[in-house]
Amino acid sequence: MVAQSITAEGMTQVASKLDDDALKQPPSLTALVNLLADDMAQVNETIMARMTSDVPLIPQLAGHLITSGGKRMRPLMTLAGARIASPNTTSCSVAAIKLATAVEFIHSATLLHDDVIDESNMRRGQDTANALWGNDASVLVGDFLFARAFELMVESGNIDVLGTLSSASARITEAEIKQMTVAGNPDTRLEDYLDVIEGKTAILFAAAAASGARISGADEQITQAMHMYGLNLGLAFQIMDDALDYTADSAQMGKNAGDDFLDQKITMPVILAYQKANDEERGFWHRTIGDGNFAAEDFAKAQSILSHHKAIEASLEAATSYANKAKAALAIFDAPDQAELAQALAETAAFAAFRRT
Amino acid sequence: MVAQSITAEGMTQVASKLDDDALKQPPSLTALVNLLADDMAQVNETIMARMTSDVPLIPQLAGHLITSGGKRMRPLMTLAGARIASPNTTSCSVAAIKLATAVEFIHSATLLHDDVIDESNMRRGQDTANALWGNDASVLVGDFLFARAFELMVESGNIDVLGTLSSASARITEAEIKQMTVAGNPDTRLEDYLDVIEGKTAILFAAAAASGARISGADEQITQAMHMYGLNLGLAFQIMDDALDYTADSAQMGKNAGDDFLDQKITMPVILAYQKANDEERGFWHRTIGDGNFAAEDFAKAQSILSHHKAIEASLEAATSYANKAKAALAIFDAPDQAELAQALAETAAFAAFRRT
Repeated sequence: MVAQSITAEGMTQVASKLDDDALKQPPSLTALVNLLADDMAQVNETIMARMTSDVPLIPQLAGHLITSGGKRMRPLMTLAGARIASPNTTSCSVAAIKLATAVEFIHSATLLHDDVIDESNMRRGQDTANALWGNDASVLVGDFLFARAFELMVESGNIDVLGTLSSASARITEAEIKQMTVAGNPDTRLEDYLDVIEGKTAILFAAAAASGARISGADEQITQAMHMYGLNLGLAFQIMDDALDYTADSAQMGKNAGDDFLDQKITMPVILAYQKANDEERGFWHRTIGDGNFAAEDFAKAQSILSHHKAIEASLEAATSYANKAKAALAIFDAPDQAELAQALAETAAFAAFRRT
Repeated sequence: MVAQSITAEGMTQVASKLDDDALKQPPSLTALVNLLADDMAQVNETIMARMTSDVPLIPQLAGHLITSGGKRMRPLMTLAGARIASPNTTSCSVAAIKLATAVEFIHSATLLHDDVIDESNMRRGQDTANALWGNDASVLVGDFLFARAFELMVESGNIDVLGTLSSASARITEAEIKQMTVAGNPDTRLEDYLDVIEGKTAILFAAAAASGARISGADEQITQAMHMYGLNLGLAFQIMDDALDYTADSAQMGKNAGDDFLDQKITMPVILAYQKANDEERGFWHRTIGDGNFAAEDFAKAQSILSHHKAIEASLEAATSYANKAKAALAIFDAPDQAELAQALAETAAFAAFRRT
């Protein structure tokens, strides 16, 4: 496992170790992106076509976010699900392209609303939409993208898929609300954190992958395999994201490192460190992430405490464990004409637990 | 026409005239509400059942809005559409009940987001959700209700209806954004105002009514009749709403009279008065609703200018004209077993252009 090879104690050392690994060709999204490049080009065309509106602010604001270089991991899930479920085809159906676009719109809508709620001013290395156009516009354009996503799903014509993705959407918002209600409580149970990230991140990965398979006519077993793949991939991805908030710098992240800390968001590293904290450390967490009373050096101190308790390493191990579950779900795809895509999906899982951006 | 009988110049006189009419049994929602009482009881049950969540804040916040005594006009449209399209039945199908619930959830989601955007602190005579729980919770619970609405629509199982209501949802947000972009411009064209209110209000009335008919198996002609009924009813309703903002008091409205003025929202009375304004009045509108520079007596002065140009009376006439178009769309429902419901819908149209709350 990748995480077990990381034994350095401080954040700097972890970053340095990751850099060493990077030299040995770390896992990446490249194989998956290349295999699905033609389909993704169609998704990008559909994104541009379907965020148009007679109201000019909509494509301006939505375009600012959507064309800012996200990884498109969620629509990749849909495309991969569609292709692996009908491996003898060389491109996705129009319905699958529309579904993948819908998935990206749902994700973009949640990002717009998240940035309003977190009062973020930087994402993917750019000013956020709310920083440029204000909260009101971000709320409404998020609503627009969400509605547009449902229009696209309706056009895809499969009521099962509509059910999967509408339930996922409800679950995302429930998790975001739960996250808000546990914010500032460093004593949050690990299972509550996992419930939050399953809802806010992993469920959409799962629904995207399963819906792609289903729209290609996959049976229940294949659909469920893609669901489990996406779910575990999403968990690994979010745990890494939360760990990176304490290790990466702004240039790497494309957002402000330390944002979660200052937003009093309770994530795995903090929960693990709090469980091992002495009285002085407990006091520190309660003053900072609990009461929102921050001094200039507090983030560095938080990093030092996390390092001392190996909380980042333990988070990386958890991410790797979920990534391995995601890989295991791919075992069903053992036909020769599924091998290349299954391999790319396995590498994507490894990437989710390894990435540095 | 009701509006033509109103010749008094000042707001006080208009209000007094409306009071006189009230003594002669003004049109009301009572007939429609009574005819659909059993169905609406089921809708209310479904509302309560489907806004539950493991996250306690969701039913608390959603319930605060949804149980605060709204008129439920939009789900009434769906129930009426469902019943008039299959007049030999004595109750709506489960699918129609779910659709009506979905329509109320979509409406509630937009209200939650509207109140965030308008920074409103009072609705239906109560503190708004954002005033009580904060903007973040209102944004997220709005998203939840919207997602829940789509789950209900999926369960209703009709893909045509899903298309109608998802397109309506996209149109609502486009109109809200357009309204935001024209805010503060008293020189807004009447056609832009009408485009905004068609999108933000009338389209959901139309989609609600048409979807109800469709889910009962209505053909295109009947579905279209209910669409036209809902559309024109919605226009009448919103024009009245905008006029009332300059005439009603807070106790009557259940929200703050003058809110639109202070929010720099450009509505029909202002557009009509601006078109007839002299230089001094133009300066007044630009300083107040244009630049947001308000003095204590400005609302009274705005009322006085509107009165001088008979802008409220002209708005009431426009509302009445749309209400009459709504009534005309009902002509197709001429079977004996449709008569009672058609009559109640006609009275509802009259109510929309007459109501004082």
